[in-house]
Amino acid sequence: MGQLTIPGVLLTPAKRIPVEAGDVVTFVKQGDAGIETVAEVYGSFIMRGARKGWRRHNRTTMNIVVPVGEIRFVLYDNRTNKDGAFQEVTLGDDSYTRLTVPPGIWMAFEGIAEGQSLLWNAIDHLHDPTEADTQELSAIPYAW
Amino acid sequence: MGQLTIPGVLLTPAKRIPVEAGDVVTFVKQGDAGIETVAEVYGSFIMRGARKGWRRHNRTTMNIVVPVGEIRFVLYDNRTNKDGAFQEVTLGDDSYTRLTVPPGIWMAFEGIAEGQSLLWNAIDHLHDPTEADTQELSAIPYAW
Repeated sequence: MGQLTIPGVLLTPAKRIPVEAGDVVTFVKQGDAGIETVAEVYGSFIMRGARKGWRRHNRTTMNIVVPVGEIRFVLYDNRTNKDGAFQEVTLGDDSYTRLTVPPGIWMAFEGIAEGQSLLWNAIDHLHDPTEADTQELSAIPYAW
Repeated sequence: MGQLTIPGVLLTPAKRIPVEAGDVVTFVKQGDAGIETVAEVYGSFIMRGARKGWRRHNRTTMNIVVPVGEIRFVLYDNRTNKDGAFQEVTLGDDSYTRLTVPPGIWMAFEGIAEGQSLLWNAIDHLHDPTEADTQELSAIPYAW
């Protein structure tokens, strides 16, 4: 196991455009790197120190931004190696970037910022609970 | 002029699903009321008391949610009546709802909550500044 860059995981610059009345933030367009079609968009808040996961999509690619706060994402790839490889990515309003996670990768995440952080996820297939697998946080050991 | 319901403007319930680690919020799916295709998604912060507008899309339908804070939207329809009609809609994390604004309607909005509020907008055509018109806030008088 090691801290690797997982094949298919992308970090694409997104813009936070300064505006006096309030900044504008880009997220995703159809045809962007990592997403041909935007089928559905949803958001998730995460309290500081709280964790959600593990979840693995088997058909769906995720495209995630964090416009509020800061979130640590841990990705776990055991597609070709039984031991698997971890990749940690921190997204937040200070480093505004879009994270693409392809199907087949386990993901969990933790709120880092004070109060609640917020992610938005644009997915390329309509939400379908039968195409995703979940596991308890303790099922994949990671040194958070 | 009056406080009317403008034809084509929709309010569609959206869900804020309580989760101990942080709530999940629905936003939009392709084929939802008011949006056949999600072409692009972007966000906009708005400071308390600040206003943005007026803007009118001529081809694009907007679908807006406010996951953080509270925003007052003012819509102005002068498509068929020179005097026009206003409609005011307040969205916020307390009344989580999706607002659909069809092409041809002028829109401006104001931050109501402490600090910064945040909207997300899912549009059915790729952003194209040539298909939108803008006017100064003072150009369309409204008793904010």
